[in-house]
Amino acid sequence: MTYSIRDLENRIHDAIKKIPLDLSPQALYDPIRYVLSCGGKRLRPILTLMATNLFSDDIGLSLSPAVGIEIFHNFTLLHDDLMDRADMRRGNPTVHKLWGDNAAILSGDAMLIQAYTYIADVPPVVLPEVLSLFSVTAMGVCQGQQYDMDFEKRMDVTEAEYMEMIRLKTAVLIACSLKMGAILGNASTFDSDLLYRFGINIGMAFQLKDDLLDVYGDAETFGKNIGGDIVCNKKTFLLIKALENSNPSQRKELNKWLVAKDVDRFSKINAVKNIYDELNLKAISESLIEKYYLSAFDCLSNLPVADDRKKELLLLADNLMQRDK
Amino acid sequence: MTYSIRDLENRIHDAIKKIPLDLSPQALYDPIRYVLSCGGKRLRPILTLMATNLFSDDIGLSLSPAVGIEIFHNFTLLHDDLMDRADMRRGNPTVHKLWGDNAAILSGDAMLIQAYTYIADVPPVVLPEVLSLFSVTAMGVCQGQQYDMDFEKRMDVTEAEYMEMIRLKTAVLIACSLKMGAILGNASTFDSDLLYRFGINIGMAFQLKDDLLDVYGDAETFGKNIGGDIVCNKKTFLLIKALENSNPSQRKELNKWLVAKDVDRFSKINAVKNIYDELNLKAISESLIEKYYLSAFDCLSNLPVADDRKKELLLLADNLMQRDK
Repeated sequence: MTYSIRDLENRIHDAIKKIPLDLSPQALYDPIRYVLSCGGKRLRPILTLMATNLFSDDIGLSLSPAVGIEIFHNFTLLHDDLMDRADMRRGNPTVHKLWGDNAAILSGDAMLIQAYTYIADVPPVVLPEVLSLFSVTAMGVCQGQQYDMDFEKRMDVTEAEYMEMIRLKTAVLIACSLKMGAILGNASTFDSDLLYRFGINIGMAFQLKDDLLDVYGDAETFGKNIGGDIVCNKKTFLLIKALENSNPSQRKELNKWLVAKDVDRFSKINAVKNIYDELNLKAISESLIEKYYLSAFDCLSNLPVADDRKKELLLLADNLMQRDK
Repeated sequence: MTYSIRDLENRIHDAIKKIPLDLSPQALYDPIRYVLSCGGKRLRPILTLMATNLFSDDIGLSLSPAVGIEIFHNFTLLHDDLMDRADMRRGNPTVHKLWGDNAAILSGDAMLIQAYTYIADVPPVVLPEVLSLFSVTAMGVCQGQQYDMDFEKRMDVTEAEYMEMIRLKTAVLIACSLKMGAILGNASTFDSDLLYRFGINIGMAFQLKDDLLDVYGDAETFGKNIGGDIVCNKKTFLLIKALENSNPSQRKELNKWLVAKDVDRFSKINAVKNIYDELNLKAISESLIEKYYLSAFDCLSNLPVADDRKKELLLLADNLMQRDK
């Protein structure tokens, strides 16, 4: 049987609720409980269960590592928010705002260890492969975060460098989630590698869509958060392409806003967005997203699994591409 | 054959030098290389190799996990120094002083992942046991660090609470180092558990000795760092016993120094040390250290391994007990 996205979300939700976190010392575990209860799409663990479900009816096979991946993802958000000094996450105050920097550091460390504990809860025969996949991925995510921070201080980031950064920071974990699920569903190496490539392509498209929504997303849905990347000069695909494609006068205008201090938020957003519009960056970005999406679709088409089994994964990929937040 | 402490130290030294750290992004790996090159006693990985050597001549069996434990230990120092805002470690500036807080956070995270990679490099048949031992230990170290930070804000820490804190923060990793080496040397569960208990006792004695040396260590060796725990009101065994055993006038004097701001460093150290002397805390502490040391010795005596094999481990334990820094 093929489980629906909703079914899988519920399984993940229940499994996360069962993580024993009512432990001592409270100051270590309270922030972990808080972070894991603040929600999120649970995209990565759902992908793990879905990948298992492509090959097996027993999605329980990958429930524990799926939870481990979600704990890891939330650990990266916790430490990233601390490094970025972000006040809010998913509409709630961040851990370092509520409990201080030290709590964010140490509870994050504990989450990384806990992630490993859940990921290691797999049959011994696949443990070396699962573990190695996860460690390489986790190190890649750290590398991606470092590149992202490095880019803050640079004005000459190339498109290729940006693509490598988002591959590491976002795509490898999505790909790992899928491949791990496939391994636990006893898929062949060919099949699990195909799902990894599907995941990389979906992950790239996902992050490019994020960049796009920050500027062109529905203001109703995004509320006052729209343009956040522009305000803080984040080196997104749009800004990098704008710096690359702009004529001298556009470049001058762009630089003016990049160095300006204490500017009006909306004036800056409008000005930068105008340049993006002049450079046709929405269409350029959408076409690149489409390219990655089609590559992902290709990978899935080549997977020797009945089409009926693939439909929920395709639906999820479509949802990600068509989302407006 | 039984390897000498020096032999094992050299093996660890060479293995650490071979860790590939000349990688991109440089900002992620430079702090890791720095931390691992700043030295230290390499106590924990030496214990791992020694434990293997009790049961096998092939210490190469546990070289990789020994390196993993040393990386983990240095990760804890890196994040602890950040949380404690410590400027110096082993005579060198700390990572957050040199590269900033974010580098300390992210490079530390990468070290924890790298530790897992080295620890997982063991024969598949022992991987689940080794990994579970390590994760439980690593979580224990986080719990210990949290208790230590919690104690900063408390004046009513009991001796029992303190003992549990140092068991978690210090002893479990030493015990884990030994047990992991034993497992890789193919020791029986009985033997590896005995070495774990040996390690807990040595670890407790080790930390109590640290507390003692901070106050009663050789000023020549310690230099101006002597009394550092007293200056920052650290809840050491000595301070906790002093708060517990003091008469009203001693308690009043102690409290005066604990709340005093901008006091002369040496006046405070002398005054608090005087109270410790009046309460005979040096002897009380030494007798507790002796108790743990004897318990450790007992564990090792019960280990069904030829005495000749045990001699380097006993020598190392003696060195730890008799050290003056």
